[in-house]
Amino acid sequence: MHHKLETIKEVISNYIEINEEEWRSYSSGFSVQTFRKKEILLAQGHLCRDVFFVVEGLLRVFFVDGEGEEKTFHFSFENTFSADYESFLKKMPSNYSIQALEDTTVVLMSYDMLHGGYKILRNGEKLGRLLAEEYFFIFNDKIQAIYTQSPLERYNRLIQKFPNILQRIPQHYIASYLTISSVHLSRLKNSY
Amino acid sequence: MHHKLETIKEVISNYIEINEEEWRSYSSGFSVQTFRKKEILLAQGHLCRDVFFVVEGLLRVFFVDGEGEEKTFHFSFENTFSADYESFLKKMPSNYSIQALEDTTVVLMSYDMLHGGYKILRNGEKLGRLLAEEYFFIFNDKIQAIYTQSPLERYNRLIQKFPNILQRIPQHYIASYLTISSVHLSRLKNSY
Repeated sequence: MHHKLETIKEVISNYIEINEEEWRSYSSGFSVQTFRKKEILLAQGHLCRDVFFVVEGLLRVFFVDGEGEEKTFHFSFENTFSADYESFLKKMPSNYSIQALEDTTVVLMSYDMLHGGYKILRNGEKLGRLLAEEYFFIFNDKIQAIYTQSPLERYNRLIQKFPNILQRIPQHYIASYLTISSVHLSRLKNSY
Repeated sequence: MHHKLETIKEVISNYIEINEEEWRSYSSGFSVQTFRKKEILLAQGHLCRDVFFVVEGLLRVFFVDGEGEEKTFHFSFENTFSADYESFLKKMPSNYSIQALEDTTVVLMSYDMLHGGYKILRNGEKLGRLLAEEYFFIFNDKIQAIYTQSPLERYNRLIQKFPNILQRIPQHYIASYLTISSVHLSRLKNSY
């Protein structure tokens, strides 16, 4: 447990100054859980009760669209946070599902814990601001990708950001994430 | 000036507790500017130096996509904030342009002013967190609309949210916002 919390401490320390005493009190609210490959951490339509911090493994955020088709929205790699943040903040049913693509260990941060931290930590609200800004950036990137980038550009950016993604994630999920067909993705891969 | 700042004070007071003294010091950094109909407040590729709070009038947030086509992304009505928030926060060139669709009066909040407020105001960071969360919600809604809603659903939600939008905004901007053709929009309107 202790070791698993080291990375999240580092990540949070990148956002805000937090001393040992604060950390001890704050991290006592965390819990750690391991999910098996393919296990569902959050099901669309359910309340997202926790923000997940990925210690080890890999998560896929996806949803079923109006036509009943499954769309992959986002991949959460090690040392990043994952959630349906709207469901979490507004306490409403989730629009997304979250699934483990590998055996995955996460730190769970509940609503009460996170919002308690905003009050308890000297820089708690700042942490909340920076987390919300990060979420905003992810969604902003997504919108830019959908509207302004060609499939090839989207593919190149993905590979640049996550060089080993093709080894870790099945091709049909990557194609769905890029909003292209699997055939199209094969063609892009083979053009290198 | 004083009257124009009343609405932004109300909006900020909905987010956080702010006393008279704090407000006087904080709002002394605001400036107020009026733009004529069609005037550009922010041009794509330029740095977004300010967050705009719309006191009166109406803004359109748009961008030119990879194919050189202009796409309307968002409308900012009275008593809401408008910006390319990523450009503003990261001090990078803007991906969007912002244009006045009517004669529009805005309160300008600069980066230094807003970030100064995070430190000066007792609840400054909380204000920043809630603003970032609001931005996140706007982008989240947009993504949900693109991926999961039919054109009719998107239209119905828009009309529900902004009942007088058809009177205030030219049809081709609304069609672009809904990512449908003007002909398609006419059909949706006439089906009522």
